[in-house]
Formats: sequence, C-alpha cells, structure tokens
Amino acid sequence: MTVTQSTSTQLTRETLAAMDATDALASFRDKFYLPEGVLYFDGNSLGALPKTVEDRLQKAITQEWGDGLVRSWNTAGWYEMPRRVGNKIAKLIGAKDDEVVVADSTSVNLFKILSAAVKLNPGKHIILSEPDNFPTDLYMVQGLIQLLGSDHKLVLKPAAEIMDAIDEDTAIVMLTHVNYRTGAMHDMKAITAKAHQKGALMIWDLCHSVGAMPVDLTGANADFAIGCGYKYLNGGPGAPAFVYVAARHQAHFSQPLAGWLGHARPFAFDWKYQPAEGIGRYLAGTQPVLSMIALECGVDLMLEADLSLMRQKSLAMGDLFIQLVEEQCSGYGLELVTPRNGAIRGSQVSFSHPQGFPIMQALIAHGVIGDYREPNILRFGFTPLYVSYVDIWDTIQILATILREHTWEKPEFQRRGNVT
Amino acid sequence: MTVTQSTSTQLTRETLAAMDATDALASFRDKFYLPEGVLYFDGNSLGALPKTVEDRLQKAITQEWGDGLVRSWNTAGWYEMPRRVGNKIAKLIGAKDDEVVVADSTSVNLFKILSAAVKLNPGKHIILSEPDNFPTDLYMVQGLIQLLGSDHKLVLKPAAEIMDAIDEDTAIVMLTHVNYRTGAMHDMKAITAKAHQKGALMIWDLCHSVGAMPVDLTGANADFAIGCGYKYLNGGPGAPAFVYVAARHQAHFSQPLAGWLGHARPFAFDWKYQPAEGIGRYLAGTQPVLSMIALECGVDLMLEADLSLMRQKSLAMGDLFIQLVEEQCSGYGLELVTPRNGAIRGSQVSFSHPQGFPIMQALIAHGVIGDYREPNILRFGFTPLYVSYVDIWDTIQILATILREHTWEKPEFQRRGNVT
Repeated sequence: MTVTQSTSTQLTRETLAAMDATDALASFRDKFYLPEGVLYFDGNSLGALPKTVEDRLQKAITQEWGDGLVRSWNTAGWYEMPRRVGNKIAKLIGAKDDEVVVADSTSVNLFKILSAAVKLNPGKHIILSEPDNFPTDLYMVQGLIQLLGSDHKLVLKPAAEIMDAIDEDTAIVMLTHVNYRTGAMHDMKAITAKAHQKGALMIWDLCHSVGAMPVDLTGANADFAIGCGYKYLNGGPGAPAFVYVAARHQAHFSQPLAGWLGHARPFAFDWKYQPAEGIGRYLAGTQPVLSMIALECGVDLMLEADLSLMRQKSLAMGDLFIQLVEEQCSGYGLELVTPRNGAIRGSQVSFSHPQGFPIMQALIAHGVIGDYREPNILRFGFTPLYVSYVDIWDTIQILATILREHTWEKPEFQRRGNVT
Repeated sequence: MTVTQSTSTQLTRETLAAMDATDALASFRDKFYLPEGVLYFDGNSLGALPKTVEDRLQKAITQEWGDGLVRSWNTAGWYEMPRRVGNKIAKLIGAKDDEVVVADSTSVNLFKILSAAVKLNPGKHIILSEPDNFPTDLYMVQGLIQLLGSDHKLVLKPAAEIMDAIDEDTAIVMLTHVNYRTGAMHDMKAITAKAHQKGALMIWDLCHSVGAMPVDLTGANADFAIGCGYKYLNGGPGAPAFVYVAARHQAHFSQPLAGWLGHARPFAFDWKYQPAEGIGRYLAGTQPVLSMIALECGVDLMLEADLSLMRQKSLAMGDLFIQLVEEQCSGYGLELVTPRNGAIRGSQVSFSHPQGFPIMQALIAHGVIGDYREPNILRFGFTPLYVSYVDIWDTIQILATILREHTWEKPEFQRRGNVT
C-alpha cells in the first residue's frame, strides 16, 4: 500500500451505525428492493430495483397494453413519455423544461449531438477527448467521421492536459463528467468556459454523474449532454438514455436520425421531413414503453431526494471507504486510483491491484458486488439512497479477509479465456 | 359503393362460426389477453398482449433485476438477447442465423443500413422509394443525405412505376413490403432481382409483413431489411426493432452508429473501434432489456404457429371482410383501397371514406378498434392468431349500423384541431 496511513481516529462498526442512525437519506433504502446477503456497490453499472416498479409495470402490462391496447398511446400517456420524463430528468441536471428528451441509447443520442455539433461548428476539425473516456463515446466519433469522410480528427489528451489542448482548431470538446474507471471528475464549468472561449462546442456525458450529485448544465452554459438511465437513475437494465440540447442550439440544426417522432406533425404522414420545434426533433423512432416506464419510476424516486444531501453522503462514504481500506487492508497491493479530494471525485472509489480481476470475483462470491474494469481496476460505486455506512464497514471486513487469506487465488476466481 | 356486388352466396354468422370451429389456429387465441367487449383490428399498430408476458416480466423484474442485479447481464442471458431474439426472428423472415439482430428502433436501424448501402454502392446517387412509403423511412433518407451533404437524391415513384424506375443510376431501392395504408404488397423477389440487375442494393422494410405471413429474404436474395417488434410480433409498445444484413455484406462495412456493443471486444475497453464480426456490428448501445424480454415472449409465441396457415387465414379473413362490406355496407361511400387480389395484399384491408376519421372514432366507441390513416383511410388489420371469423361478422354489423344510422355525425366523433 503506497498511500500513507490515515491520521484519523480508528473507526468502529458502531461509529458507522451511529452515522446511519442520523442519516437524513436513510429512509430511502426501504424504497428499493435489495437482495438478502448482498452488499451492492455497482449501482453505477445497474441501479437497484425501486419497489414501485413491479406494480407500475404490472399495470402497464395488464391495463395499459392488455386492456387499453393501441389506445394507450394517448390515454396512458405513452406518447408524451419521452418529453415528460425528459423534463423530470432536466430537474436533476440543471436543465430547463424542453431541453431534455428521453430516447434511444446513450450511444445513439451521442451520434445525434455529435452530428449537430459538427454542423454547427464548420471550419474547425478537431474533436477533443481523452483516451480514458468511456469507449463508446470515442467509437461514436470514429463512426461519424468514417461516415462523413471528412477531415475531422479525434484527438485524445490525458485529462490533465485537456484544458491546455483546447485551441482555435477545436470544434468540439467531448468529455465524460465523471470517469467510469477512476471516478475523477472534470470541472464542468471551467472546461466549458474554455471551450467557448476558443470557439468550440462542449458535449458532456453525464452517465456517471446524473442522479449521483447536483449537475448544473445551465450554470455551466453547456451546449449538449447525454446520459444513461440505468445507473444512478435506477431505471432498470438498458433503460432508455437522455439527450440535452441547450435551447439556444435547438432551432439551428435538425439531427440526422430524423425519425417520424421527431417530425413537427408525425401523424400527418407527410413524405417530407419537417423537424419538430425544440427538443422534440431529437426523437427518432418509437420508444420502448415498458423500459421507459421503469425508468420513470426510478426518476420519480430520485426527485424525492435532495441531491445536495446525496452528494454529501456519497463523498462521506467515499472518504470512509478510502480510510478503512488504508486502516484495514494496507500492505496487500491496493493502490488508490480515485482522487482523494472529494471536489474532483464522483460517486465511486477505485483501487488498482495486479490481481484485480480475481479479487473482484472473490468479493462477488462473498456477497460484495462491485465492478472490475480493465486493466486492473476494482470499482466501488456509492449510491447514497440505498447504501449505508455499515455496508461499507462490512465490505471492508470481507475485502480484508480475502486479501489476508489470499482467497482470490482459488481457481474459480481466475480469469478464463478472453474478456468478453 | 363502387365495387360490384359479390356473386358469392350470402354469408351468415353461423357460416363463420363453423369456420372458427375448424380453424387450425383457433387455439392460439387463448394465448393472448384480449379485453372484454373489444373487437381488435389494430394488431398491425400494436399487437395484443401474450399471456406469457406478465409472469415473464415479473420474473425479470424481481429475480433478474432485483435479486440478480448487474450479474444478470450474464446469468440471465441479457447480454446475448439481441442476438438470440434476432436468430429467432430470422426464422420468421427466411434469414439465416447471425443475419438478424434486435436493437433500437426501426428508424435507427434503417439509418445503419442506409449508411451501409450508400457506402457499398458508391458512384450511384439515386435512392428510389415511393411517396406512399411509411414516412419515417423517407425521413431517415433525408436525414442521412442532409448529414452527408452528398449529391444523393431521394426519388419517389408510385408503386406501379417502381420496377420501371430502377435504372443504372439507382444506388438503393428502399420499399416497405406491405404498404401501411393500402395494404398493397410488393413482389419482393421480382423487385430485388430488378434492383440487382441494375446494380442497385435492396432494402426491405418488413414492418407490416413480419409475423403476418411467410417472408423469404434468402429466397429473394435481399440485401438489407428492417422490421418492427410491436405489430404482428406482439412485442409490446415500442418493442425494439430488428435489422437484417445478408451475410455477404456484413464484413464489408461497419455501420456508423458504432457503439460499444457492436465492438469486437466491448469489455476490453479499447479506445479504438473495431467492429465485431458478423451481424453484431449492427449493435450500438445498451438495449432496453425489459422491453426486449416482452418482445421475446411475442416472438416465441409466433414460432409456435405455422406461418403458411396464418397467411391462409389472414387472406380468408380479408376476403370475408371485403365480401361482407360489399354485402352489408354498400351505398355508404366506402371505397376499397386494398388490392382485391390476395397475392398482392398484406394482412389488412383498407377502405377510404370522406368521413373516415369520425367513422373510425364511432367504431372505436362501439368496441371495434381499427386505425385511421390520413387522409381518409379506415384500416383493419387481421392478426390470424387472435382474430376469429365471427369477430369479422360482428364488426361488419357494427360498421353497417354506424353507417346506416349516421352515428359518426355525433359531435364527439368529429376531429378536433390539428392531427397530432
């Protein structure tokens, strides 16, 4: 362990239980279904199940689909759902009404706004990102450039060099607010301001920040953003994603995935595409209603919580996690990857370890579900609405035991074949 | 009524009940949930609810999402679902294993294959379709051309002129197999052959044929196809769509919506896009699992049925519907729009009427759910697995009464404001 020993007083399980007892968010835990015997630190991969989902979806299946049939597009509000849930998510990210719509996947939504940004900023050809951005974001840029056959170029600079790399040739800066592996968080406001100063447009991927902390797209004067429904928003597996376009940009470009639900008058069935006013033009085809209903349950729950309290708790949990690893797991090769400074950290803590893969497998086998990310990262996400301080204590005990007893050396925890 | 009076013997409800009694597909009706008091002729807009869906989705929610959490991507088979369900749909459309994948919406999938076809056929610039194609298909072409800024041109010719319009300048012929308004069906094999003879690539939209009749993409030597999960496949509202790419084309182009799930090794998290071998590269982002599970229920049910029997019954129902309208509703201004010849008709019958909108509203108010399509079309879709011959009889009685009594003149059935 290369980190220095913490100087704080030794913590006990009782200390953490006392923190849970006074946690203003503690009551939210009961609003989620959490399986017995599981300590869940992967809500940043798939959020836990809100208890409202089962009944809501049963109603959607039997009453809305079964009884209502096609009539439910109007009578059950299906048709308005992308905009309605979009407006709800807007409240979580500092966006205004009619700046967010829920649709498609994060990847597909990124394609829409990349296309818009490229066309809105002609004459510049650099799309700037970091090599450690979530790969799908980088892939979508490559796909667009290949399709356009243009001289746009994807330039990748390490996070620390991004600010200096933004220059007059930069058309678009595209970053993920919180890094999926390290948990490091960019300064949204400062980078956006630098991008604008140099004449670039700014795209923010909020997958690892929406629902985990207050985000203020309006305050940052952001241009475009995308984000995911199935992580901190607890929208269910593969929940639809969302796309944000600042009102000032909406009228100036109709995105190329010009499906009928983005048309000004879809049911006029005119042959000629005429984009809807506003954010509606970022819709393409028909949306998966059942999955979007589950997402709405998750978002509704999130709207009941105070995002500032969530952020406080999330950072406190991260601090505790780091402190306890340093106190109880030192000497086993874990290296802190996440910034120690909460101001530049998302809602996760990551450690590297040469045996990261089998250690995470051993943790999962012992009921602690975190995530492993190549090449050697153990990732623990903190979801303030359903993870308790005592969960963290119990997790550290299991982690310490696995490290002390070399449990991860068992054959069943070893990697088999290629990563798939 | 301009059609000539049918020469067949007068039908009775008993005749049709007898046909139901010997219908080899009759047992399927009980596999669907159908609301009391509804006669449903809009399965080509939203298919009815398979009874398996409720339990299957409850399991997906409570056990797979709730208990399994992120582990279910592997343990519950979520990750493989787009390919697994794709291979099931392949059996319904005469495609081979690994030529179909389920993902995204029809519109988004069309963008993928349009992009591929444009790049695979450089030097030609005409994209040929018909003005009466489903609008989203035409819109996606317009969106792609606008994005590319190329000299591609969308040329629209009436269905009857398509064959002659295919020439050496044609890059792509893009048609919907069965027209959404008229129910007219193209000759897939002949048009595809003509396209290939002139050096064009062929895209078929199967939204109104998949699950309603046997389709033979391999036999027609088709290049690309797309289709919808929520109509005849009974996959639920906004169910994910599918995309077919003939094996011979797959290796030659990686489509531009290059999301991580289309990568050769998504979990290697490499920054550089490397498309998966085969149909997998037509995946982009993460798919809506709950909606896709409902779709799989619908597809599984469809695989139990004999598509040739379904086609026979569907045509018999259409013939009966036409005959009964002619016998019992003549003189009220209904004009048959659908081809009388079953060989060139899909699984629907459409009539035009100047008061089409209020007549359909009156029908719906009396429990007969069909669809209205601009400018004046009453559309009745026949879903052989859950519509009976007697349903058709009962529908005609209601329609005849509405026409005879001018029920549609009531204020509540009139159009209010613009079409939305």
